[in-house]
Amino acid sequence: MFHDISPAEKALPQGFRWGTAEAAIKRAGRLDVGIIVADNDCNCAAVFTQNAFSAAPVEVSREILQASGGRVRGVVVNSGCANAATGSEGLANAREMAQLAAGSANAEAGFLVCSTGTIGVQLPMERVRKGIADAAAQAGATPDAAMGFARAIMTTDTVPKIAHAEVSLFGRKVRLVGCAKGAGMIHPQMATLLAFVTTDAAIAPDLLDHLFRRCIDKSLNCLTVDGDTSTNDTAIILASGKSGVELRTDTPELASFESALLDVLQSLAKQLARDGEGATKLVEISITGGRSFEHARKVGLAIGVSPLVKTAIYGRDANWGRIVCAAGNADPSIEPARVSVRLGELLLFDAGAPLPLDEEAALEVLSRELVRIEVGLGAGDATATVWTCDLTEKYIEINGAYRT
Amino acid sequence: MFHDISPAEKALPQGFRWGTAEAAIKRAGRLDVGIIVADNDCNCAAVFTQNAFSAAPVEVSREILQASGGRVRGVVVNSGCANAATGSEGLANAREMAQLAAGSANAEAGFLVCSTGTIGVQLPMERVRKGIADAAAQAGATPDAAMGFARAIMTTDTVPKIAHAEVSLFGRKVRLVGCAKGAGMIHPQMATLLAFVTTDAAIAPDLLDHLFRRCIDKSLNCLTVDGDTSTNDTAIILASGKSGVELRTDTPELASFESALLDVLQSLAKQLARDGEGATKLVEISITGGRSFEHARKVGLAIGVSPLVKTAIYGRDANWGRIVCAAGNADPSIEPARVSVRLGELLLFDAGAPLPLDEEAALEVLSRELVRIEVGLGAGDATATVWTCDLTEKYIEINGAYRT
Repeated sequence: MFHDISPAEKALPQGFRWGTAEAAIKRAGRLDVGIIVADNDCNCAAVFTQNAFSAAPVEVSREILQASGGRVRGVVVNSGCANAATGSEGLANAREMAQLAAGSANAEAGFLVCSTGTIGVQLPMERVRKGIADAAAQAGATPDAAMGFARAIMTTDTVPKIAHAEVSLFGRKVRLVGCAKGAGMIHPQMATLLAFVTTDAAIAPDLLDHLFRRCIDKSLNCLTVDGDTSTNDTAIILASGKSGVELRTDTPELASFESALLDVLQSLAKQLARDGEGATKLVEISITGGRSFEHARKVGLAIGVSPLVKTAIYGRDANWGRIVCAAGNADPSIEPARVSVRLGELLLFDAGAPLPLDEEAALEVLSRELVRIEVGLGAGDATATVWTCDLTEKYIEINGAYRT
Repeated sequence: MFHDISPAEKALPQGFRWGTAEAAIKRAGRLDVGIIVADNDCNCAAVFTQNAFSAAPVEVSREILQASGGRVRGVVVNSGCANAATGSEGLANAREMAQLAAGSANAEAGFLVCSTGTIGVQLPMERVRKGIADAAAQAGATPDAAMGFARAIMTTDTVPKIAHAEVSLFGRKVRLVGCAKGAGMIHPQMATLLAFVTTDAAIAPDLLDHLFRRCIDKSLNCLTVDGDTSTNDTAIILASGKSGVELRTDTPELASFESALLDVLQSLAKQLARDGEGATKLVEISITGGRSFEHARKVGLAIGVSPLVKTAIYGRDANWGRIVCAAGNADPSIEPARVSVRLGELLLFDAGAPLPLDEEAALEVLSRELVRIEVGLGAGDATATVWTCDLTEKYIEINGAYRT
């Protein structure tokens, strides 16, 4: 099993093609329509935003997935316009996108549809129609095509995010590829951002849904950039079955597959945090001694979303007081006397009291590109790891002038 | 009734003196010890942080207030060191500060104690002892002395915050003065930051506590700068009774007094938001049509804490999609078709769909120093107003290099 952000030499899951087009949705000269077309109908699972203003494509995808019993042919995506808070016109546009994609593939099963970009603006449908036709026409089953798709869904992302895994099961290869986008407006709430995983395993929709949610809980739902959850968050997995490997409940092969899926999603989560808007560092926060995974994650996310923690890391300031403060906000029942805080390998706080701080050693840890923080809560046996990034002037610059 | 940030010519409540000293707690050459000494024992109410890592002075003040049944002689405060996450040594130091202050006033009733500054560092007690003695020795009952106190409690604040109110009751004057500090790590959780109100009304501790909590709920608890709640948050009111006006339950005079108290606390809340770390604008968010005050406030605070909303306001970008997105996160049960969004006098979103945006008019609204946002939820009759500021590069600069 392995994963990598450059899968050029990795074999892709069988049964899928990826296509892209330039449709000048927000501005000309960039890929902004992407399509994943399966050769045959696939089993599919998806998780969507819980935001009350869930976007038109989220509403439409929910409908299609429910009506189909988890059978779809592909996904069509645009960047540059979120098609959220766009009323009935937006809903009609999202439905048309799904229909155009299905038509381009002569598919019986439907397509899911995703959008990402500015909220509150209508799609330029003339150009979107042409974009979908172009993307479907040039879709291919090559690593370059998959990487192109990962590029077409980007907004403020500075690099495409792609992860790959391969497991041998019953003497055959099962492959997974995941693509994701998102750099701001990132905080978990079921799904986060846009993520698309394809696999050639054969797995029933219910089982796929169960595995996918469990893996997302420990990957994309352990990720925060700025505490804002998008109206468009969607994560989708498509299983083509083309590997010939059928996965069933309570088998060791299913466990191997789940582990590979978690690998792919955690790799994407880390790539997303590392490319958080304006970020210079990836921050990994491990919480131990939680009462439950959810408890540990809640404390970890409270630390990971704290602007004071994030700016201190940016400033390479070992200001661990901000870490305990954020933890204490997340859970007022924490007993300080049981708490410990580590920055890299340095123990800074233990049993409710500060330890002498070696400023030079702390500066060295904080100068790394990956900064690790570990907080022990002493309340139980559960652990969670969350990922975030530092907060820099660049985040302000990007978001102070995003729409215009 | 009036309030003002420069009360030089305003009469102060009777029965109090304010003192300050330079104790070089974090660095030399600035006021960092403040004391409020009452002429006689006062009735007192206070609200404290809910953070699990509540600071040593919070623990000690809670003890003193509980043991005294709401009778205290004054408050002693230091800035430059939070005395939080400091273990048993920190607790002993906080107790000693309270005892020194009480000793300096020859008081039978105790003093409450507050600290603000860096977390996880012990107080330099040698200098603190001298500071408390100096501050008590030079305490005076003048507007300059009260303004000095407001300065001595500052950390990253750029201006002191003070508010004043006067009401005529039973033919006599009752006066209130409030001081507060705080520019970062600000988000409500019972109390927020440090705030000190003095009044010469005579009012029983229980009734004072009740009024104080109700007014804080609509003032300091409607304030956010960055979503981080401090380990040291404390708000205290001291009532000397020296006006000779006694306030009793269910009287029109009590209602007048409560209105004046709310005025003082809301003025402080606005001053605090306006001086949020790095802020260039005060942002006032009014939520109408909520199911309850708490519901409306929850949505308002979610908008007010969103870094994407705050950076858009900084960038003068009428990106109202970020406002509905933040609202939709706070309450997934919001019905978009009932929601409206106004920026200043401009209606941008109504009945679930965007309206044409007059970019020039929006730029004019966003260029104001006070930016007003109004969101109608259409779910009930309750309203709430919250205050925040914009998020700028300066916030990063301040917090990327705060401790060092």
